[in-house]
This record gives sequence, C-alpha cells and structure tokens, in this order.
Amino acid sequence: MDMPIPDPATLARKDELVARLREILPERAVIHDAAETRAYECDALTAYRCPPLAVVLPGSTEEVSAVLALCHRMGVPVVPRGSGTSLAGGALPTADCVLLGVSRMTDVLEVSYADRVIRVQSGRTNLSVTGAVEEDGFFYAPDPSSQLACAIAGNIAMNSGGAHCLKYGVTTNNLLGATVVLMDGTVIELGGAHMDAGGLDLLGLFCGSEGQLGVVTEATLRILPKPEGARPVLMGFDSSEVAGACVSDIIRAGVLPVAIEFMDRPCIEATEAFAHAGYPDCEALLIVEVEGAEAEIDHQLGLIKQIARRHDPVDLREAADEDEAARIWKGRKSAFGAMGQMGDYICLDGTIPVSELPRVLGRIADLSDDFGLRVANVFHAGDGNMHPLILFDANKPGDLETAEALGAEILKLCVEAGGCLTGEHGVGVEKRDLMGHQFQPADLEAQMRVKDVFDPAWLLNPAKVFPLEVSAGRRAAQIAAQ
Amino acid sequence: MDMPIPDPATLARKDELVARLREILPERAVIHDAAETRAYECDALTAYRCPPLAVVLPGSTEEVSAVLALCHRMGVPVVPRGSGTSLAGGALPTADCVLLGVSRMTDVLEVSYADRVIRVQSGRTNLSVTGAVEEDGFFYAPDPSSQLACAIAGNIAMNSGGAHCLKYGVTTNNLLGATVVLMDGTVIELGGAHMDAGGLDLLGLFCGSEGQLGVVTEATLRILPKPEGARPVLMGFDSSEVAGACVSDIIRAGVLPVAIEFMDRPCIEATEAFAHAGYPDCEALLIVEVEGAEAEIDHQLGLIKQIARRHDPVDLREAADEDEAARIWKGRKSAFGAMGQMGDYICLDGTIPVSELPRVLGRIADLSDDFGLRVANVFHAGDGNMHPLILFDANKPGDLETAEALGAEILKLCVEAGGCLTGEHGVGVEKRDLMGHQFQPADLEAQMRVKDVFDPAWLLNPAKVFPLEVSAGRRAAQIAAQ
Repeated sequence: MDMPIPDPATLARKDELVARLREILPERAVIHDAAETRAYECDALTAYRCPPLAVVLPGSTEEVSAVLALCHRMGVPVVPRGSGTSLAGGALPTADCVLLGVSRMTDVLEVSYADRVIRVQSGRTNLSVTGAVEEDGFFYAPDPSSQLACAIAGNIAMNSGGAHCLKYGVTTNNLLGATVVLMDGTVIELGGAHMDAGGLDLLGLFCGSEGQLGVVTEATLRILPKPEGARPVLMGFDSSEVAGACVSDIIRAGVLPVAIEFMDRPCIEATEAFAHAGYPDCEALLIVEVEGAEAEIDHQLGLIKQIARRHDPVDLREAADEDEAARIWKGRKSAFGAMGQMGDYICLDGTIPVSELPRVLGRIADLSDDFGLRVANVFHAGDGNMHPLILFDANKPGDLETAEALGAEILKLCVEAGGCLTGEHGVGVEKRDLMGHQFQPADLEAQMRVKDVFDPAWLLNPAKVFPLEVSAGRRAAQIAAQ
Repeated sequence: MDMPIPDPATLARKDELVARLREILPERAVIHDAAETRAYECDALTAYRCPPLAVVLPGSTEEVSAVLALCHRMGVPVVPRGSGTSLAGGALPTADCVLLGVSRMTDVLEVSYADRVIRVQSGRTNLSVTGAVEEDGFFYAPDPSSQLACAIAGNIAMNSGGAHCLKYGVTTNNLLGATVVLMDGTVIELGGAHMDAGGLDLLGLFCGSEGQLGVVTEATLRILPKPEGARPVLMGFDSSEVAGACVSDIIRAGVLPVAIEFMDRPCIEATEAFAHAGYPDCEALLIVEVEGAEAEIDHQLGLIKQIARRHDPVDLREAADEDEAARIWKGRKSAFGAMGQMGDYICLDGTIPVSELPRVLGRIADLSDDFGLRVANVFHAGDGNMHPLILFDANKPGDLETAEALGAEILKLCVEAGGCLTGEHGVGVEKRDLMGHQFQPADLEAQMRVKDVFDPAWLLNPAKVFPLEVSAGRRAAQIAAQ
C-alpha cells in the first residue's frame, strides 16, 4: 500500500510541533518517542501499518480544540482514533500526522432515565456505556462485536451496528447529540436530548463520516430499558439459498426479531470444532432471537417457526431455558475466533437488499471457486449486512493479494445487487478505491464539497474514504487555493 | 413581514424566463398569469402571502433538472413546493422566484415487499403511499395530520413526524434513498434500498433541510407490515403537570406505545363541543395506544394502566371494541378543527425532553396569563413534541402580533428546557429569527457553509430557515464573490 510520504518540512518541524503540543497538553498526553508511537501504527486492519509523527491523548473538548487549532495552523494532518478496533483501517496513521486518541476521555457526564439519555465523553467504550446504567435496568443498544473495546467516538465515526441492530437500529438511530471539534478548533454542538433539530441535520451528516469532518468529543446517546426476556431459536437448512429465502420471508411477514444471524457450512464446521455449541450438521443455520414479555416471545417465535417450517428445516430448536440459549449464542459469538484458528482471513462488510440474499450467496460461492479461496459466511442477515470471511494463507506469496481481489469482487457484487460497500465497518483505507463503484462522480463530488467546508486543507484523517487518486488531487488543489 | 423586493432586472426578464421555461417544459407545466400564480401565493401559514414570478409543475427528474439549471444560469431564486401544507411558511414564494411544484410527480416507481421498500416520485401524497401497498397488508409509518394532502417531498424537506412516530420514528428513520437535483441541475443519488451507505451520509443531511440544498424528486421509503391490532386507553387527570408526569413514567418504564397523545382542558372542552367524543371533564387527558398481537396488547396496556393508576386518574378507560377505539380517536383527530371553530389560532411546534413536560406546561400557563391570550395544548407527548395552540382574534388590532410574541416566548422556553424550536413543522419563515436562540454563531455558520456548497448563490428557497439578517448578508456576499 502506498502511504503518503511524510512531508520533509513537517518532519523537520517535529520538534517545534512537539514543543507546542506540550504547551497545551499535560506531559503524559504527548507521545513522540518512536518506540512509543509504534503502538499506534495500526488498527485492527493489521495488514497496514505506519507510525505517526506524534500521538496526543487529550482529556477534554478544550484540549482537543487546542490540538486541532495548532495542527490547523501548522498544516499538520490529524488522524483521530477511538480504541483502534477499525477493521477497515479507519484509524491508520500517516507518517506526517498527529494521531489524536480519545482514550483518556471516558467520563459519564449526565444520565437521565426519564429522558432515556446518557451523555458521555467519546472515548468511553461501548460496553461501559451500558455498564453505567445497567444496574438501573437500562442499556445502550448498538452492539458491535468489539463492544468490550471499541469507543463511542469510533462507533459514531463508522455508524457502527451489531447483532441487535435489526430491532434497535445502528448508531445514527441511537445518537441524539454530539459536541464536535472542527479542524480549525471551532467547537460546535449538534442535536441534543430532544427529538429533531432546527436547520440542517449536521448530526446525521457527522455520524458515519469517518473522522473526515471533525472530532466528536462528547455524545448524548439514547438508552433503553432492558427487555423482560429474550429467547433464540436455531434453525438448520439444506442450502444457504433456502436459509436466505427464510430470512426474506421472516422480514416480509413483519415480525421484528431483535437478531437474525446466519452461518454457512464452513463457518458452522469451524465453530463446532472450536466451541462445541451442538450445532446441526447442515449447509446453513439461522439464529433468530426475539425479546419482550413471555407472551410476546411465545407469539413471535410461533410465527417465526411457522415460516421456517415452510422451508423444510433439517433442524428447528427453540431454547428451552437460559442454558440452551447461551449454548446457541456461544457458537455464533466465537465464530470469528474459530475462523481465526483455521488461518488468516479478511472480514468483509457489505449490505444488500434482503431479497437478494439467496442469489448473492450463490454468486459468492461461484467467486470462491473461481479465485480458489474458501469463503465462510457469518453475518447479520436480518438487515442484509453480510460479513463474508475470505480464508487465505499470509505466508503464501500472492495469497493476500488474491484474497483482496476476491473481496473487491464480492463487494462489487453487493453494489450490483442494489446494496452497499459497507454496513458498519466503514470505508477507511480498505474500500476507498471501490467508492467509484458505489457512487457516480457527481455523488462523490457532492461529498467532497462537504468535506471541503469542514476541512478545507484536507488535514483530517487523510487518505481514507475517498479514492486515493481523487483525494490526493483534491488536497493539493485546496492547499494551492489557500 | 418584509418580503425581499423583486429584483427589477428579474421582473424585466420575466418574459425571457417564461419563454425559456416553455422550451424545456410542456405548456401546461408553466404558469405565469398573475391570476393563476396567485393560487400559489401561500402555504398553510396563510398570514404570509406573496405571488411568485412564475410557477412550474415538472413531471420528471429530468424536467426538474432542466428548470433548476436554467434558473441557476439566470440567477432566479426557486421555491420548491410539495402540496403547500407547511405550517411554518416553508413553501412561501418570494416575488422574484420560480415556484417549483412537484404535484404532478405522483408515480409509484417500484414496490418490493421482501425488502419492505417502495420507490415513489416525491409529489405523491403521504397517505397514497400507504394506499399503494395497503391491500397487501403494508403501510408507510410517518403520519402527519395533513397526510391526506401533504407530499412526500414536503415530508422529507421538513423531516415530518406524526402521532405514530413514537414507535416508528420520523421521516428520516423511514427514508432509505432519494434522487436529488441540486441548484445547478446536477442529479445525485443518495442512499438506496439497503442499510447504511459508504462515505458521508448526505441523505441524513438532506432530510429536513427545508429545500435549502436541493429538490428531492424520487424517494425510496421503508414500508412496514400492518400490525395485527391496536387498542387505545384514555386517561384523565387533575392537572396537566400530573398527566405530564405520567407520560414521563411510561417512557421511563420502557413500554413502547405507538402513540401518547395529550390534550388539556381548553382543548378537551373545544373538542367535546365539536365532536362529542365522550371525553371526561378533567384538566388533561392522555390517549395511549399500543399495537401488536392481542397478547402483546394486553400485556403492554396492563403495564401502562398500572403506571397511570399511580397518578390517581379521574378516568381510565380501555377501548372495549373498535367502535370505542374510534370514538376515543375521533376527538383527538378533530381537535384542530374544533379549535378552528373557536377562532383564529397559531399552532406552535417545539420539542422538549419528556422529563420537562410538567414544568414546561406550568410555564406555558403562566405565559398565557401574562400575555392575556388562551393557549390550548394538544400534542405528541411521548416524544416531547408539543403543539401549543395560541388563540387570538385576527380582527382585533395587535392581537396577531401579541400571539406571535407569546409564541416566540414559548419556543424560547422549549429551547431553555433543553429542547428545540421545531419538531416536525420546520423553521420556514416562521421561526427563522429564533434560530439564534437555538444555535451559537459557530453552529449556524457550519450550517450555512454547507448551504454554500450546494447552493452557492443562495437561490434555493430564499429567506427561510436562517435569520433573515444573516442570510441576506450571506447571499449578497456569495453573489459578490462570484
């Protein structure tokens, strides 16, 4: 991968930069020693690495503002970072950048159960938002697999989802307000603990903008009361296509499960060998979970099982108790770990209209044959958010490249099927050069003009989201115009 | 109200403008006769009127694009209009503008029940979207009171809500994609029939942008299967504060009714005299409706009644059958008509955190006394979306001005309570000069910079949303810079 070459003038100015950062931040909040900055050289897309010029770990909105204003004046790029769990390289540094981590900003600022809101600093982890309110019977709904580690800042940047988002929506549906620092240090307030907002919906724009427009330092989030109960049903099918058709029928029937998870044979086999969840020997399985009061659960699962039976399941098992429920989920939750035991993999993230599931799963199988690499599917089927895992051998020359080429074909297939390059992982560096398949030039131009507004010199989170060729030119033109 | 004075040069060019419009549109789609353009001189905020220079009624995205490109080249402002039902003057013409109505664009372009989406031209009315799918058991959820008349284009422009949005969300939660024409005629595609989107979320930005950024010509909307059943419960209370506290407790308990509607004594009395709905003689009543299967309805209403009893209701009545349900809703649905019988009124639209309901209702009563005008409250309480109705006498000199001054105080109160100037009606011309109470200068500046991007000459829907003083200056500066 071609990383932007550090600007020699910037490198020469590193001492000045560090000295100035120290004037505005506590000493421990500025890291510039090469050995230490290396800890920030990558996120969870570990194939790409690049140590930043310096790392700052501010503690407040004011400190973030001071850092951005300084970097803006000095023309130094800034890469914001939550917990660094991005699977798309969303927090990958460039060699000439200041990496701005929000990991020290973890305070709970306000909780109101009557309004069902919590306000936190953006470095707080997803799971610890729930942790702050669960004793009182509440929770924060979006649940990325990385929820133990990932920060709310990153969730907002990527508009993160999770298994339970079928019912509760993704981050943008659970984000009510944000304090944002723009690249020039200006602090703006978006939304708040109330419905809607006058004027333009900049909150909706900033959510999912991958650190291109500003740095979120505080967030007002919707919290929900915990449901009375939840129960999964496990169903196995003869083919992925039939399982896909069953998902489509459940959605069409208007039942609203909290989760519909899908696993195909390669994934089932790996998971069984690893977690011994007692999954059936079949081509594809679904885990469908519903929530609520007992009567509601019985009613909804009744409808769901009725639909499933029309697709001749080879297995159909409703969890009889909490133990069985835990066992059903155990396999799914360890699926990524299990696949990791089998070798290296790339985890894709595309969305498609649910009705396209059977056809797209069939095409992925064909592509897998064509490229000679195994693909396992485990994903949030209810909202058409696919996560094909491409297995490869990192030690075999050319295998990574073949895997990446296959990944690109699968994502293009998602777009052709009326879907989208990314559901919840973001574009990052991983998919930037595929954006031209999703968007027409006029669409991309409109996005980049909005980027121009908030970050005229294109200093924020460089070399991501937009095709590198396009964004490099844009950045040069913007700088020349200043 | 000061309307921008028609630019003499533009007036002189009216003939040229009309001739050019006729080159790109069918003859019946161009209206310029003063008698005919007068039909478009106002929307539902009838206190403000101004005939446009000309009216165009294009039939397709291509025709809208041709009109906007022409007006862009000629420097003619354009006011987009759905069905003209805005209560905030969102479609009020200026004297120098072309009014672009989408009322001829009503086609259903595509329906997919498996993906639960419908794609329509944006001039289609809200209710006729449901009309296109209800035989197959589906519906479109957002339900503004004007749903028989209002167009999807206006719903998107204002991010409209409705009584059932507590459960289903407002327009932005039910809008998946849009075809948008920018002021220079460029056509862009936002979102689609899939979850999420790569890059910047321009769909979220355009939804609720009040025609400031572009004209939506086609929309992909989420449709939902009709619930098995629905049942309301009616509860009366000794005071508005107690009713407000009951709402707050229901929300806090995590029950999710599909609607929580609130009416206070002035509104109850007017409604009873008009619709004879059999409402109790009390200070405030709530109508709480839940949906689903019978067992689910019983369970949820059980919880809701339990909460209500803790607030010593003077009446608590669950609809025993559909007739009684219809009677309970009849009063609520005729409330605005009933108030209209009593005299002139201004309908406000502010939101507050639900926990603030009791306090804000008390303060509104105080302000009503201070200004000597009656205020009736009827609104969507569950999401804190208030609609105070200020009663006045249009024939009494100064009464309208007093009503407007009281309205401004009430909306400022909403903002001070942590809420927002507008829930679902939009800012329009009505609240533009209150925006400074909601937003800091940096917040407004960020919004206006986004407006600059999409409409550099500030030609689209002029004199709305932003404070007139600010937007006039902005427009002049942008024109001077070109």
